[in-house]
Amino acid sequence: MSIITLTTDFGLKDHFVGALKGKILSKYSEAQIIDISHDIDLFNIAEASYVVKSAYTSFPEGTVHLIGVDSERTVDNKHVVLHYNNHYFVCADNGILSLMLQKEKPQKLFEITIADRLESNASDMDIFLNVASHIAKGGALNAIGIELEHLKPINEIQANTESDNNSIKGNIIYVDHFGNCVTNISQEMFYNIGKDRTFEIKFGTKTIKKIHQSYSDFVVRENYTLKDYEGEKLALFNEAGFLEIAIYKSNPNTVGSANSLLGLKYRDVISVQFK
Amino acid sequence: MSIITLTTDFGLKDHFVGALKGKILSKYSEAQIIDISHDIDLFNIAEASYVVKSAYTSFPEGTVHLIGVDSERTVDNKHVVLHYNNHYFVCADNGILSLMLQKEKPQKLFEITIADRLESNASDMDIFLNVASHIAKGGALNAIGIELEHLKPINEIQANTESDNNSIKGNIIYVDHFGNCVTNISQEMFYNIGKDRTFEIKFGTKTIKKIHQSYSDFVVRENYTLKDYEGEKLALFNEAGFLEIAIYKSNPNTVGSANSLLGLKYRDVISVQFK
Amino acid sequence: MSIITLTTDFGLKDHFVGALKGKILSKYSEAQIIDISHDIDLFNIAEASYVVKSAYTSFPEGTVHLIGVDSERTVDNKHVVLHYNNHYFVCADNGILSLMLQKEKPQKLFEITIADRLESNASDMDIFLNVASHIAKGGALNAIGIELEHLKPINEIQANTESDNNSIKGNIIYVDHFGNCVTNISQEMFYNIGKDRTFEIKFGTKTIKKIHQSYSDFVVRENYTLKDYEGEKLALFNEAGFLEIAIYKSNPNTVGSANSLLGLKYRDVISVQFK
Repeated sequence: MSIITLTTDFGLKDHFVGALKGKILSKYSEAQIIDISHDIDLFNIAEASYVVKSAYTSFPEGTVHLIGVDSERTVDNKHVVLHYNNHYFVCADNGILSLMLQKEKPQKLFEITIADRLESNASDMDIFLNVASHIAKGGALNAIGIELEHLKPINEIQANTESDNNSIKGNIIYVDHFGNCVTNISQEMFYNIGKDRTFEIKFGTKTIKKIHQSYSDFVVRENYTLKDYEGEKLALFNEAGFLEIAIYKSNPNTVGSANSLLGLKYRDVISVQFK
Repeated sequence: MSIITLTTDFGLKDHFVGALKGKILSKYSEAQIIDISHDIDLFNIAEASYVVKSAYTSFPEGTVHLIGVDSERTVDNKHVVLHYNNHYFVCADNGILSLMLQKEKPQKLFEITIADRLESNASDMDIFLNVASHIAKGGALNAIGIELEHLKPINEIQANTESDNNSIKGNIIYVDHFGNCVTNISQEMFYNIGKDRTFEIKFGTKTIKKIHQSYSDFVVRENYTLKDYEGEKLALFNEAGFLEIAIYKSNPNTVGSANSLLGLKYRDVISVQFK
Repeated sequence: MSIITLTTDFGLKDHFVGALKGKILSKYSEAQIIDISHDIDLFNIAEASYVVKSAYTSFPEGTVHLIGVDSERTVDNKHVVLHYNNHYFVCADNGILSLMLQKEKPQKLFEITIADRLESNASDMDIFLNVASHIAKGGALNAIGIELEHLKPINEIQANTESDNNSIKGNIIYVDHFGNCVTNISQEMFYNIGKDRTFEIKFGTKTIKKIHQSYSDFVVRENYTLKDYEGEKLALFNEAGFLEIAIYKSNPNTVGSANSLLGLKYRDVISVQFK
């Protein structure tokens, strides 16, 4: 029995998520359904990609991840199943998976062609949940459609290195619940380019020269406790492996956050200069 | 084993929903509990009715739907169990179920009279969860109370046809997460009255003359792709079978939605004129 | 098999909650995971304490409650497991549990010392979920760490009685989804001090002289129905056993609530004067 996770932009007020679960359970009564997020910004494939990428490795191998963001099937937007790192992703080929894989190769990729086997008024979610239930039950991928060679390439925001290998230019790709700002600069890229050199992380007029090992990784002295560091900015690699600009003990609703205090927002530029 | 679904106006921040689930699992440890919504507008029976009506048919027959909206038991607000379309609904007789059934007959309807068998400080939810668990375990309905003939009639907003059968007058009954505006005009009513006649859907100063088969059902030409239609208004019958006024690829937080761009709100009038 | 409940300030948009569940299921595939709340105000231990205290007794004995609020392990913030009233609480010793217990004694209390047995980059949540899964599977508490004598004492807002035993002074500790304002004055304290005396509950310029048995506990007369009482202020002991100031049929989004109509907010003073 496999887990089926759900990531959508449906929100939690409407009946959509409940109905989706009801239909999955009607198909496959033993399904173990886990919500990843239903609050993805509407039609935002960059957010969907970041959230799924950050969550999926926490699940057991064989888990099926259903992603309902911008999933209407059109000529440009095929429905696909991706087999990758021993997980399954059921999604539209709209860039979410391309962003997640970057340039890595899928294990297997199939276009979903079962729509003609369903009722004529079957929705995109009906197609997805039929496929997800089929895979979660252990069904074969090639019963679902036609094997594809590659995902649709996309030109979304990605971090780049300068030709002299002395700097990286990236962007804010996600602002989390704590107002912390996640960039598209991976830990791997940072150390591949930087080696052991000193560095300056720059955004707006601000500079950070240290990578924290944790949010509370501050020097505590006799008369200067952790409490005195509340509100300090810091940079660290988050659990998903991306460079994150944070405020220690931030709160977007009260004292402020990296997002509000540092003026950072989605797509803003962050650069790293190595010396 | 039956599923128990939950629809409430309790919100997700407080302890209420978690505690309700804990109590159900204490009564019936194998219960499979699925959230439909906990963000119903407070005490709003029209919203609760629309959300439950739209979701329940997605669940297997025999599912028990617990509805915790405006459920305090008073002289005017009996607690009831409705058996309808092979589903069970546990709820106060406050109009939610009357709106859902319109003029259809219940299979069976019982007033819940178990309160005196529970502890004196048992809450309305304690009563509901005891009844829901009893039914989900396969218990008999007549152990729960007294059979009733009919639900309390209500005079809530309903779509009407003019006497000449040339027009329908309805209202916005729900604004969804995408800002799309759902009316109380059903697909069935639309085709019963309209037959195959041409029509004009009117609201405020706007008119729509076509029913879309899907949100992206636009005519794509060589130099005019789907992307060029983003922000266009459209009308379609949604999955719940109601006429919906939508904006293609709307986003209430950014570009706007049917709700914000067309000035539509809860209870606004929508008319359909047949020619 | 035990239930694991989750209470955090992670919010529902990010991947954190989904990833936490995925990791628990990877450790313990039969875990039954129930959300209490993920919308605790960031780092707010008073809110976390109230929500967990209000919810936990609704779950079967033996349930494991994982609390992820202000949980970074520092010199001042040990990780602990508390066994109390036959429930288990996995949490940082940051005041959440001290507030919950008041002056009561734990059954057993352990400091968690398993961090060195996990990978070096194990997060606080990795530690919590390993411990919670261990206990939920029936594992022994003493395998987790070192037994402690008592929790860290805290001086957070608590209700007090005057020396003449004629009054209680408390505070608003939680504003719920309905805008109702919960105080830290317990039913037990109220009756211990007040016995059967008459009383005045005072806040700002307002006074209430009656405790309602339920929200709708109003005197209904021939020409004065419950509907006429909508918007009235009232005081009652809520299901968690605390004095609550409420508005009958309030709605923070429309007609207003105790919070907005009476000007009450977190930490405001409420006094009870006995005669």
